[in-house]
Amino acid sequence: MNVGFEKVEKGLENIAIKETCLSNIDGEKGKLYYVGYSIEELAEYSSYEEVCFLLLNGRLPTRNELEKFSAMLVSDRSLPRQVVDALRTLPRTAPLMSWLKTGVDLLSLYDQDAEKTDDESRMRTATRLISKVATLTAAAYRLARGLEPVEPSPELSHAGNFLYMVKGSSPSPLEEKIMDVAFILHAEHELPASTTAALVVASTLSDLYSAVSAGIGALKGPLHGGANERALEMLQTIGSPDKADEYVANELAAKRRIMGFGHRVYRSFDPRARIFKRYLEQLSERTGDKTLLQIAEAVENAMMNRMGGRNIFPNIDLYSGPVFHLLGLGKEIFTPFFAAARTVGWIAHVLEYWRDNRLIRPRAVYVGPEPRSYIPLDRR
Amino acid sequence: MNVGFEKVEKGLENIAIKETCLSNIDGEKGKLYYVGYSIEELAEYSSYEEVCFLLLNGRLPTRNELEKFSAMLVSDRSLPRQVVDALRTLPRTAPLMSWLKTGVDLLSLYDQDAEKTDDESRMRTATRLISKVATLTAAAYRLARGLEPVEPSPELSHAGNFLYMVKGSSPSPLEEKIMDVAFILHAEHELPASTTAALVVASTLSDLYSAVSAGIGALKGPLHGGANERALEMLQTIGSPDKADEYVANELAAKRRIMGFGHRVYRSFDPRARIFKRYLEQLSERTGDKTLLQIAEAVENAMMNRMGGRNIFPNIDLYSGPVFHLLGLGKEIFTPFFAAARTVGWIAHVLEYWRDNRLIRPRAVYVGPEPRSYIPLDRR
Repeated sequence: MNVGFEKVEKGLENIAIKETCLSNIDGEKGKLYYVGYSIEELAEYSSYEEVCFLLLNGRLPTRNELEKFSAMLVSDRSLPRQVVDALRTLPRTAPLMSWLKTGVDLLSLYDQDAEKTDDESRMRTATRLISKVATLTAAAYRLARGLEPVEPSPELSHAGNFLYMVKGSSPSPLEEKIMDVAFILHAEHELPASTTAALVVASTLSDLYSAVSAGIGALKGPLHGGANERALEMLQTIGSPDKADEYVANELAAKRRIMGFGHRVYRSFDPRARIFKRYLEQLSERTGDKTLLQIAEAVENAMMNRMGGRNIFPNIDLYSGPVFHLLGLGKEIFTPFFAAARTVGWIAHVLEYWRDNRLIRPRAVYVGPEPRSYIPLDRR
Repeated sequence: MNVGFEKVEKGLENIAIKETCLSNIDGEKGKLYYVGYSIEELAEYSSYEEVCFLLLNGRLPTRNELEKFSAMLVSDRSLPRQVVDALRTLPRTAPLMSWLKTGVDLLSLYDQDAEKTDDESRMRTATRLISKVATLTAAAYRLARGLEPVEPSPELSHAGNFLYMVKGSSPSPLEEKIMDVAFILHAEHELPASTTAALVVASTLSDLYSAVSAGIGALKGPLHGGANERALEMLQTIGSPDKADEYVANELAAKRRIMGFGHRVYRSFDPRARIFKRYLEQLSERTGDKTLLQIAEAVENAMMNRMGGRNIFPNIDLYSGPVFHLLGLGKEIFTPFFAAARTVGWIAHVLEYWRDNRLIRPRAVYVGPEPRSYIPLDRR
């Protein structure tokens, strides 16, 4: 009965829903840029605070701007007492992503600026969310493990403070640098389902908290977040490098997916995987524990030998899991950390979309029964 | 730099993202069908419980099935004590939609089936959500007004119980019928932003609570929910029928939008508006208060005279606001009620999509700076 849109754009594959200046993925060449700067240079030379400023403002900050922006993030780190009290009552068996979503909703209720729509209030809410979602993540992680939350430290960088709040001790310079790189690599990646969910919500002119909450809800799904948890489990299951090839052969024969490979957009090596791999090498060297690195490399080699030429390459998840593991993070925080780091990407896309907002209202192709008469209950 | 998708499908207008058997909108003729049954017949002869069964199962229930399904909804009405306790602590100044979203997230934490993915568990979670979001809505409304929540009554229909929980007294048969019709008319409407947000979240194989929470977040935005609140405010501002034409003339001259008219999909009279108008007539007759009806009709006439032929017709919001007002509902519950009624539509679309799931991952057209070298902080 419907005419005019017979075709279903499944998964919206290759359908553009907005213009962006935020990130550019060259899937063929395996390149990723934030506002024109390559992810390799940003990971090496910049900081997460600087990348957040870049994504929110479209340019790198001056020293003065960066100091002001960083100070704002620091001042936003603490959670309202009522939110922490509420978190304490939550059942520890629930997924951490559900804690995080609940926490973001609770935060919105205590933010007097949450409903304001002027640019300045929105920017304040943006930094508040970037800062507080990281604190929420650490607090939820500890509470779910039966530990007391650690108050944020105003002395540390965003990444250093995150590790401090999670572990309760100050990180080494290498650990802080790697955590910072992890935040940078997860900050933004165009329009995955989570960012799309945030945009759809925001396109009704709803608030930033609702957009971020939708992003978290999407990231919670196993087809989006959680892949590095499962990639790490795979490496741990394999157990030693010499068993990798056999494992890969068996899984491929059984037509099961090997975790940590392939990406809807990249048809080449995921540049973030390459960066993480280098830091995994450094961290393995430092800790003296090279097992996971060697297994991951062996899996990569096995996949290249067996699947080479089929556009299947390692993605970020193969190497991020081992990195986080060596940083002392439990698997259950991997996806919540992703949410904390990506909050800036969700918000930056929403702010960009709001500059030329259009309500997102697609259609469905109706394939159900033709119009028919209602049948009273007695005659069914 | 991007090739292959130069065109941006703004707002996804006329882009189909799925097939559906759930509803069919004939925007030209002003017709709406749920699974083939016209909204007029469903409003007149069926009940919300029956419509929920229809949307979840694709067919009308037998008497036995309807009794079982209704009993399940009744048994799911109460909220966990911990959720009510948490609601009591929330700040009364926050929007009711934010309360509702927080409530849904809290509910997920106490539902042991929330993460289960078999069909039966999902159907249990579906009825639980349909039932409990209505209870949440009523409880949040009362708590925000400083009133004690009213325990659900197992004796009443879904709609009758909703009115009872909101107002604390049993509704008359006419009030119950009108509330039931309101639930039916708001149950499902293809793919507005809220349903789209729920689908995007669900396409990652996230859970039903996260999908419903995203729907609420989208509905919260003024471009989606809330239009009937503002339409009612408009009617109250106009104050009497003889001032309607002048008001419309002034607003049109100032190029401001008249609330309660026009719809992205309908190019004709919104069939739901016609139904609500009839019940507004009955309710006005019964209460003896015809002012809002007469003003709404006068605005409709003024719009037809001044805009006739331009495909601008009354939509559901023009008449639902006055109906809810005469039922004794405060404006702040209009959109939360919409969420409670639409929960079934969000879930039915998600369950339908999951039968042939594809991760929703659109693209953006990159229009930002070309690749450039990072500039160290000292040289900016």
